Amino acid sequence: MEDPRQAMEDLLESSGSRFDAFDAGARVLSPDEVISILAPQLSDERIERIDAVLAGRTYQVAAVVEGVINTGNVSAVMRTAEGLGFQPFHVIRGDAPYKHSVRTTQGAQKWLDVTEWEEPVACVQSLQSQGFQVVVTALTDQAIPLDQVDVTRPTAFVFGNEQHGASDQMLECADMACVLPSPGFIQSYNISVAAAMTLHWAHSKRVELLGSSGSLSAEDTTRLRADFYIRSVRRAEDILRKAVGD
Amino acid sequence: MEDPRQAMEDLLESSGSRFDAFDAGARVLSPDEVISILAPQLSDERIERIDAVLAGRTYQVAAVVEGVINTGNVSAVMRTAEGLGFQPFHVIRGDAPYKHSVRTTQGAQKWLDVTEWEEPVACVQSLQSQGFQVVVTALTDQAIPLDQVDVTRPTAFVFGNEQHGASDQMLECADMACVLPSPGFIQSYNISVAAAMTLHWAHSKRVELLGSSGSLSAEDTTRLRADFYIRSVRRAEDILRKAVGD
Repeated sequence: MEDPRQAMEDLLESSGSRFDAFDAGARVLSPDEVISILAPQLSDERIERIDAVLAGRTYQVAAVVEGVINTGNVSAVMRTAEGLGFQPFHVIRGDAPYKHSVRTTQGAQKWLDVTEWEEPVACVQSLQSQGFQVVVTALTDQAIPLDQVDVTRPTAFVFGNEQHGASDQMLECADMACVLPSPGFIQSYNISVAAAMTLHWAHSKRVELLGSSGSLSAEDTTRLRADFYIRSVRRAEDILRKAVGD
Repeated sequence: MEDPRQAMEDLLESSGSRFDAFDAGARVLSPDEVISILAPQLSDERIERIDAVLAGRTYQVAAVVEGVINTGNVSAVMRTAEGLGFQPFHVIRGDAPYKHSVRTTQGAQKWLDVTEWEEPVACVQSLQSQGFQVVVTALTDQAIPLDQVDVTRPTAFVFGNEQHGASDQMLECADMACVLPSPGFIQSYNISVAAAMTLHWAHSKRVELLGSSGSLSAEDTTRLRADFYIRSVRRAEDILRKAVGD
């Protein structure tokens, strides 16, 4: 069986990250330049698929996993977030040793902007400074039902450790806590299930209230299109460097 | 590692099934009699918890897994269904060998009415004869978006095999197919994730449209209370037999 710590490193290593411009050595290429250079490498079908994905994409909903030790759970939440079109993804490393389980991301991680953090406070402060309300899924006295969260605002949903949930630090600095309905005997859901319920609900609610969950500005659409072209074309970086004569 | 086939047998063996009356040998006990005999064995807190669960319980939404080979996935769907208060659960065995994965049900299976089937047609016909519309989650040409399913009607949601989805037989005899939103690059969700999204949505929609997802008749409440008492009290069957002097 694969080493769990290595599995987590591999997952994070293969993840995408926010793209702003491409440093081709001889000069820096703008997103528009990247797009014109790489477009001939892509089939019409692929270009249409990327356009369709961009139309449903948003930076307004972020998924955050904190101290999750099972790499399969991190993969599962990534696959859910990518599938629903939520671009920002944050991984706050925990102290516990990782465990590995074989659940596939279907490569979801490479299409997300994944940011790693060593501890929760810096992550929450960064999200709040970008205008996100930080909502931690946790059964606290002040927790509100999920369906009372206003997802027309930029919202980051935090999913905590499999055994202990979110850390005390996270509970303290998050803006609010929310709970999922659980009228049955079981007291909690598995993290990949909780994330599926929460993020799917957020998507449906955004479609209902906003007409679409997708919300990219023209500028973000161009930037992310360039990024998706780079992630789609084999040896894109060589092609871009060659195009500027580096 | 545990034998997967044995793990599936153990899961089904430990599952609850529909209770109508208790055969105590000397005579058959009605649900009311079962309740009066067992109530003194339960703490007030436990009795209140069971009442709360009954208030959120319904027979109007059924979960069906067809040909699912990973026992962990069956467990995960059971835990989700129990947590949301959906009592009927159907397992249609597949041909493929089982795989085992360690995901806990938290004992969810014992609170459900689990019915096993060898093949899909008998299961679907039984559900339809009870007034259920059978909705299979599958990407077919006629599939409608999940949010167009009318969950104020008795509805059974079918989740198919991990690799191949629902069987052709199932697709043919189900009343309709539905799809989850997937505006991203990944083409499908893991079965436990798909079930979480679907069943949580059904619960939320029922609360929105009906005021509550729970919908037991007085008679079903009494019957299920007796059943939950039996499932809660250690050696309940000995106690019941002793009470009628058997």
